[in-house]
Amino acid sequence: MAKELTPRSENYSQWYQDLVIKADLAENSAVRGCMVIKPYGYAIWEKMQAELDRMFKETGHVNAYFPIFIPKSFFSKEADHVEGFAKECAVVTHYRLKNDAENGGVVVDPEAKLEEELIVRPTSETIIWNTYKNWIHSYRDLPILVNQWANVVRWEMRTRLFLRTTEFLWQEGHTAHATKKEAIEETEKMLNVYADFAENYLAMPVVKGIKSANERFAGALETYSIEALMQDGKALQSGTSHFLGQNFAKAFDVKFTSREETEEYVWASSWGVSTRLMGALIMAHSDDNGLVLPPKLAPIQVIIVPIYKKMEELAEISEKVKEITTKLKTKGITVKYDDNDNRKPGWKFAEYELKGVPVRLAMGPRDLLNGTVEIARRDTLEKTVVETEGVETYIENLLSEIQNNIFKKALDFRTANTTEVDTWDEFREVLKGKGGFILAHWDGTSETEEAIKAETKATIRCIPLESEEKEGLCVYSGKPSKRRVLFALAY
Amino acid sequence: MAKELTPRSENYSQWYQDLVIKADLAENSAVRGCMVIKPYGYAIWEKMQAELDRMFKETGHVNAYFPIFIPKSFFSKEADHVEGFAKECAVVTHYRLKNDAENGGVVVDPEAKLEEELIVRPTSETIIWNTYKNWIHSYRDLPILVNQWANVVRWEMRTRLFLRTTEFLWQEGHTAHATKKEAIEETEKMLNVYADFAENYLAMPVVKGIKSANERFAGALETYSIEALMQDGKALQSGTSHFLGQNFAKAFDVKFTSREETEEYVWASSWGVSTRLMGALIMAHSDDNGLVLPPKLAPIQVIIVPIYKKMEELAEISEKVKEITTKLKTKGITVKYDDNDNRKPGWKFAEYELKGVPVRLAMGPRDLLNGTVEIARRDTLEKTVVETEGVETYIENLLSEIQNNIFKKALDFRTANTTEVDTWDEFREVLKGKGGFILAHWDGTSETEEAIKAETKATIRCIPLESEEKEGLCVYSGKPSKRRVLFALAY
Repeated sequence: MAKELTPRSENYSQWYQDLVIKADLAENSAVRGCMVIKPYGYAIWEKMQAELDRMFKETGHVNAYFPIFIPKSFFSKEADHVEGFAKECAVVTHYRLKNDAENGGVVVDPEAKLEEELIVRPTSETIIWNTYKNWIHSYRDLPILVNQWANVVRWEMRTRLFLRTTEFLWQEGHTAHATKKEAIEETEKMLNVYADFAENYLAMPVVKGIKSANERFAGALETYSIEALMQDGKALQSGTSHFLGQNFAKAFDVKFTSREETEEYVWASSWGVSTRLMGALIMAHSDDNGLVLPPKLAPIQVIIVPIYKKMEELAEISEKVKEITTKLKTKGITVKYDDNDNRKPGWKFAEYELKGVPVRLAMGPRDLLNGTVEIARRDTLEKTVVETEGVETYIENLLSEIQNNIFKKALDFRTANTTEVDTWDEFREVLKGKGGFILAHWDGTSETEEAIKAETKATIRCIPLESEEKEGLCVYSGKPSKRRVLFALAY
Repeated sequence: MAKELTPRSENYSQWYQDLVIKADLAENSAVRGCMVIKPYGYAIWEKMQAELDRMFKETGHVNAYFPIFIPKSFFSKEADHVEGFAKECAVVTHYRLKNDAENGGVVVDPEAKLEEELIVRPTSETIIWNTYKNWIHSYRDLPILVNQWANVVRWEMRTRLFLRTTEFLWQEGHTAHATKKEAIEETEKMLNVYADFAENYLAMPVVKGIKSANERFAGALETYSIEALMQDGKALQSGTSHFLGQNFAKAFDVKFTSREETEEYVWASSWGVSTRLMGALIMAHSDDNGLVLPPKLAPIQVIIVPIYKKMEELAEISEKVKEITTKLKTKGITVKYDDNDNRKPGWKFAEYELKGVPVRLAMGPRDLLNGTVEIARRDTLEKTVVETEGVETYIENLLSEIQNNIFKKALDFRTANTTEVDTWDEFREVLKGKGGFILAHWDGTSETEEAIKAETKATIRCIPLESEEKEGLCVYSGKPSKRRVLFALAY
């Protein structure tokens, strides 16, 4: 097998890189920090998009599109936002090239300098709120529930495919509301949509929570996030939903006449998930043989491989396979029959294991005689022989079982790797040893949070929404604390 | 009615602008030449995307994603391409801003200058062929049939919403083949997909043809296009498909080992349609009352408006409407019930006419008594009263009839506005008078084409694929010609 992966136990980071490349998900491009998303990787992203888009629309949102460029001055309008975003970004300064008379090729035409530089959007709050100013006059114009699917650019120094890239694809929801209450409800609703998607499609359990002030989105009053645990014991922030208060309305002077005929600033939320979810999906489930895809997001759910020596055998098998694929397709199952004669079955088995296809069917001459087919499931690598009669129902159930099993496995892993600690020694010990999520008391100050980060690199992932209020003492400062918060090393 | 449009007869260009703005399709943004696509406009674009994407996949294509930035040097690698594309474009020169200590706000950090400037993609042949170099080694790796949905930027001096904008959305297919024949077949296949989409979804008849050398894509050996006729007698190029020969393979050194074990350069095609199709859709069918949308692309296919005085009447009507909407939805028809009590029926009628909703149902107390409903169709503005019993079948047929009728109307218009001319006087007279498509003999030289353009602004839209070979004399030079070509003023 040419496509072997570095084992996770040997070098987790190299395993991830190998897997992304060898499973044809993505690769680095000629442009520093920008990736090429290859067709197989993009097909998974398309499945994610389709489900998310459906969920957004079911919750009343519509899509729109705003410019990729943002005038530089827009960033300075919201004080916190500029600190967080306007620094590391791609700046367009000119709008023309010209032939280079001396050296050949083309050079920037100095006469085509823009009066004001344009920033390639790192996020779109500013340009969108500048637009909303014209859309919103009265309470009748509210709420605005808009989402955008787009590319964004943040100039990153250290990049990793899917997890942190200079350009990435995402969706960003930007909503406008008449009241604070409504805006907070929207912020929480979308967090729940993300959690639902993560758990029921990505099969990845997440902790819903609120970010500490240090980790808040630049310009938000409150940032909510979903946090997932990867197999190496590190956390991955997988989606964020921000309550923006009236910050952007004030920055862009967006007011409306209320029902009571008073003039008010508009309340806002924004929320997003990105191609980073691809990284989460890969790291949450995959193994040393390759990807393990939850059936709901697998571009190919069932792969069928014929086992034959003579071409007549292939013909007979193909005929039988045709019956099976027809029945599977009727059930809405995506199936591929790989009868490529250039490759041996063993090669195909390894290839589709690498690509994470949830179910594999293999059929040989003896299966034909017996009216059977061999079924292998990707998650457990178990094989069974079943009768072809009714196999479509068997597979339908199996896909659903695999989806549940992958989730359960990830949940069990998380449970086993979530530790409550009460002393600073314990904290450091767990972090150095098993890693994972650490639930510990914290005194609520940024100083303590920063000190912990400085000493251990661990950060507060979130203050879990579902954590119970319970008095305790801060694991670091010994000061009183009202509840445990979630610490971890993070991507 | 507040939202009146400038009549087409008075000022066609203003009518277009009014319509795009007032029907909530798009608007100009704070960034010169970049538009905001509003939710209603974007919903139409999404419908177009969904159909095109399905058609691409049915013809064997897969989606992928390549970086938005292209290193400047890439453009110089294909000699014609650089002339056509690298000139008017957005150039990223820096990757950081910093606080402006003197004046406040932020300024470009001069220390964060890129070694090589990055160009925001105006089209992706260069970055994609640079990537294909690593994907293609053997004939077994071919064909590559990849499409990308993306935003692109071309710095335009004069912009018009949808028709010509600095940033626009599009899809670009980039395919790689082992033989010239296959690449040409692909180029023609995708032209046919575009024509099929234009005629059967946009309901817009198109002429398929080949571009003259002057109008060819920069880097192509042959450019095919579909050309549509707008209501003001001007042509709109609505999609292009390019046979690129081995130009980009040579520029980026992409070779493969053939079945015969020789080393060959790869053959290429590229093809694209953009949000310009939105402009085509609007201009091909709409009238002085607003948009006329073909049912297959209408975000709302049926609008239902209750006519009532008392709230009890509304309740009864709503109950009946619920039955109807359920039946319509079962048939896959998109329906909206507008029971907003703040607006009068007359306002709603005008609003949905402006938005081009194909079918309107109005139901009042008398309809309830009689078991009827009033149906108005947007294309002809005709009204009929029909029985509610079986109305879903009536509407299903009506939607299909409207789709066909809109196409037929556009086809009749095109037929009436396509003129064969044989003399230069006739040519100028038709062009000044009725306008439209002009079929005339041309001697095949760029000089004549340029002279005609200089004198009349008319260009050769295409050499129609279906034009018969027939000897004649060039309408301008009097030299011999083998077939008529299609002239028009164009967008």
